[in-house]
Amino acid sequence: MSYPTPSPIVISEEKLQSQYSHFLSKRCKNRKLYSFWDPADLSAKRNDRASNSDKSVPVIELTGGMPNEIFFPIRSIELNINRGIHTTSPFINARIDNKLPRELPIPISFQYSQTQGLAPILDFLKLIVANCNNPPYQNWDLLLANGSSDSMFKLFDTLTDETTTVLVEEFTFSPVLSNITATGASCVPLQLNFTSNPSNQGINVTYLQHLLENWQSGPYKHLNRPSILYTISTGQNPTGLTISMENRARIYKLAQKYNFLIVEDDPYSYMSYPTYVKGKNINPYHSRMSTQEFIQSHLVKSFITLDTDGRVIRLETFSKLFAPGLRLSFIVANNFIIKQLFDYSEITTKAPSGASQALFYSTVKAMSEHIPNNYCSTSTSLAHPNIPLPSDLSHGELNKMYNGWFQWLVRLAQEYTSRRNVTLDTLTNTTAYKLGMFYITPPSAGMFISIKINSSYNNKLIDEFNNDIPTLLSHLNKILIQNGVKLVLGSNMCVSKEFSKNHCDFLRMTIAYSKDENELIEASKRIGYGIEQFFNTSRNISNKEF
Amino acid sequence: MSYPTPSPIVISEEKLQSQYSHFLSKRCKNRKLYSFWDPADLSAKRNDRASNSDKSVPVIELTGGMPNEIFFPIRSIELNINRGIHTTSPFINARIDNKLPRELPIPISFQYSQTQGLAPILDFLKLIVANCNNPPYQNWDLLLANGSSDSMFKLFDTLTDETTTVLVEEFTFSPVLSNITATGASCVPLQLNFTSNPSNQGINVTYLQHLLENWQSGPYKHLNRPSILYTISTGQNPTGLTISMENRARIYKLAQKYNFLIVEDDPYSYMSYPTYVKGKNINPYHSRMSTQEFIQSHLVKSFITLDTDGRVIRLETFSKLFAPGLRLSFIVANNFIIKQLFDYSEITTKAPSGASQALFYSTVKAMSEHIPNNYCSTSTSLAHPNIPLPSDLSHGELNKMYNGWFQWLVRLAQEYTSRRNVTLDTLTNTTAYKLGMFYITPPSAGMFISIKINSSYNNKLIDEFNNDIPTLLSHLNKILIQNGVKLVLGSNMCVSKEFSKNHCDFLRMTIAYSKDENELIEASKRIGYGIEQFFNTSRNISNKEF
Repeated sequence: MSYPTPSPIVISEEKLQSQYSHFLSKRCKNRKLYSFWDPADLSAKRNDRASNSDKSVPVIELTGGMPNEIFFPIRSIELNINRGIHTTSPFINARIDNKLPRELPIPISFQYSQTQGLAPILDFLKLIVANCNNPPYQNWDLLLANGSSDSMFKLFDTLTDETTTVLVEEFTFSPVLSNITATGASCVPLQLNFTSNPSNQGINVTYLQHLLENWQSGPYKHLNRPSILYTISTGQNPTGLTISMENRARIYKLAQKYNFLIVEDDPYSYMSYPTYVKGKNINPYHSRMSTQEFIQSHLVKSFITLDTDGRVIRLETFSKLFAPGLRLSFIVANNFIIKQLFDYSEITTKAPSGASQALFYSTVKAMSEHIPNNYCSTSTSLAHPNIPLPSDLSHGELNKMYNGWFQWLVRLAQEYTSRRNVTLDTLTNTTAYKLGMFYITPPSAGMFISIKINSSYNNKLIDEFNNDIPTLLSHLNKILIQNGVKLVLGSNMCVSKEFSKNHCDFLRMTIAYSKDENELIEASKRIGYGIEQFFNTSRNISNKEF
Repeated sequence: MSYPTPSPIVISEEKLQSQYSHFLSKRCKNRKLYSFWDPADLSAKRNDRASNSDKSVPVIELTGGMPNEIFFPIRSIELNINRGIHTTSPFINARIDNKLPRELPIPISFQYSQTQGLAPILDFLKLIVANCNNPPYQNWDLLLANGSSDSMFKLFDTLTDETTTVLVEEFTFSPVLSNITATGASCVPLQLNFTSNPSNQGINVTYLQHLLENWQSGPYKHLNRPSILYTISTGQNPTGLTISMENRARIYKLAQKYNFLIVEDDPYSYMSYPTYVKGKNINPYHSRMSTQEFIQSHLVKSFITLDTDGRVIRLETFSKLFAPGLRLSFIVANNFIIKQLFDYSEITTKAPSGASQALFYSTVKAMSEHIPNNYCSTSTSLAHPNIPLPSDLSHGELNKMYNGWFQWLVRLAQEYTSRRNVTLDTLTNTTAYKLGMFYITPPSAGMFISIKINSSYNNKLIDEFNNDIPTLLSHLNKILIQNGVKLVLGSNMCVSKEFSKNHCDFLRMTIAYSKDENELIEASKRIGYGIEQFFNTSRNISNKEF
């Protein structure tokens, strides 16, 4: 249960500042915090109310505009927590009240709290980062935010303005473009490789290298050189593609050479799948898989594991692993960048919901209850020696929480793997697939399968659309809806419609929202029927209907 | 239980746009939303999963990157809710699970949800606004946010840039200055009247009028005319002052004449107190006070009740009425402004925490359980006829929730009134007060009492500080801490140290954070001792110690 701990590099705070301050936006530089309290007070107050060890008289606090906890109407919360995905699985109880959990009871979690996040949660998350994706330098930190949308907003508002160019995968989670362009910055699309070959999926590194080498003479020479690459590196949204470690290393070298930051948005890597083999339902996950095995054998490693410079900013979220309604996410980066984001949070959202943090924390703690003590006794080394624990939480408890959480993640991965397998089995059994009307790149992580339409299957039909793929997809979409299935069009998720006009011919399907595998099987069949019908429709039909 | 319903003015959407679009910041105008989904889908999906009444085949949704609720680890939540402030009071239970409450079960509240806020909560809040502070025009709306800090950040980012001047009370909740100045805008302080005369407390309207009339020749002529007045109108932070309705009307007329918006930050008006009479503990609140009596006889009316133009933006929060950890607030304004803030939320935080919304909603619903049906049978007219209710919530239930919530607010007001009374009784019984060393303006609302130091009590001492009031306060502060009590210095909460240098001689004390009245009595005595000691110290002592 130990993890590799090569001595991490120490980058001095001064070096971080000198190296990264020119990446800050003008707006970030203009920010100034006006506060009337001493930030240290907030944490001191929590643990040391109406007492003051330095003074003979315990001090009565009359400063903060904080209601006493007696004014909170909620007296206690009982949680009933699923150990597994299905409602038939065993469950566990947790209680939150004025005393429990002792390190995060209601008077702390429902009070104003530290903007960075509640201390026991920060320690838990640092342990996860250190074990799954340990950055090779020492002075990194993390900050909670209100979901990845909030993380990205804060990040781009801190790092981009009208002088900034951001590299983005040509198909992406398009709302992020709103964050970037709202600051006046420009987005430049990067070609993606849609290939089943895992070593070469995702960002076309040759294209990227060529673009950077020839920036001054290339199509974006009117823009400044890019200072940021934004990538959804694993189980990419919308394509489902995952960048190999070899290509991550090549991209990181380019980031060093051309001095840009890498923003890695990674909601999906804990939902990792084995290589797909049709009809075999290969599923390595089982309820007794150890945390170590899960991490070592199945998790795709983050860009941040290559990050000797502190130039990677990693975004994680609990929307997919717990529930979107928590609005709980976190950002990992070097101390200097985290400080800027922290200062920004201080004047915007402050701490994420304490209710969300309390429910999250108590759920994870309850998940640890069935972890045997001896399971943990071998794993105290899991607690990263550099992480100070909150006084009230022992290393043993933290380790149990960590293992309890990963047992949940293993179950999630198991369920998603099974969903991916049956969906791909069904899709590849459709007549449309067998006739070559569409292709599939089996995803190795995430929620999405991209269904690539073979436009050349019926050249006559394509001609009728004048090679206008967005219109073609829109037509196909209507047929699919008539067949009772609704997907996202690739043409709606591109950075530049012009750049991607010839290869946006795909549909994004999610395996996450359906209630069960039967629904996915039915949906996959309908996709097959719909695509078949599409290629068999004549021009006349399409004219009449649309 | 009915409320006055004069026919509200209709301001056309076109007129709102033409009247208010020039108030938008450059950044707001640059915002653009890139989304790949149809926003209508999200709400449709909630109520109509895998079914589609227009089509013969129920559509299977494979679009949104939303996990099915079976992936949420929380199966159910049981809440134990206080009916009154003290733990000895009766309590009520509420359950949240996959079916309950039927209009807001876990699959809705813990899923991605509408950015504006969950529908039943929006209806509940609209009912509150319509009954407590009904705007006299029809096309207003409201939007939830993540606490008032988030509300203010979004608001000022939408309304201010480097060309904007914002009028601010000379002493204020200083973090708001961070929000304003981060956009490049300038703050101009407004004189406050520290008077016990309730008709003339707060913003000095004569000063304001003079400032506006003589802007071009005044001290701020280098700045553009103000386009916003930011005011904490009731139980002001830090002064505890409340602007009278007469003065609100005068200020509103000035806003019309000089065309500025009024941002009314109002966390405190539900904590309203009767006129203070020493030693009488006047407390009109009792557990059977009707909602109508509370609203009509005790609530200070918002600026928005005067707002025939749609130029008032009102901010409310549940931090003081429920718990700060919810990070739940809302903004009331005209449709056009709300639309801008909504669009901004779409690319930043999206919806506030669903966990917070679920706990808040279920708590309020539970509070309604002991409200007798006949109490409500007379009050169906409370449901504003213009407010469409979510299909699943009846007007009767909504009315009960409304009355249940106000019973809680009555109890809060009762407790805070009692705290205010004992604190003022104790403070005014101190030797320091009797000797005239400090003055008090009894607050009629809110959490704060400002303790105005009578600097002229000991001219020798003042001379020793060269009339430098911040240094004098800092000295006093150290003596108070030695006496075991900690307050906020007025000099730390001013917009301009220069502007307020001669009248920042006060301390802010809160009556909210102490655990009980005994602690407030002890604290008040210590304040008296500390001030007495301060005025009796000699220069030598202060030199030695500081």
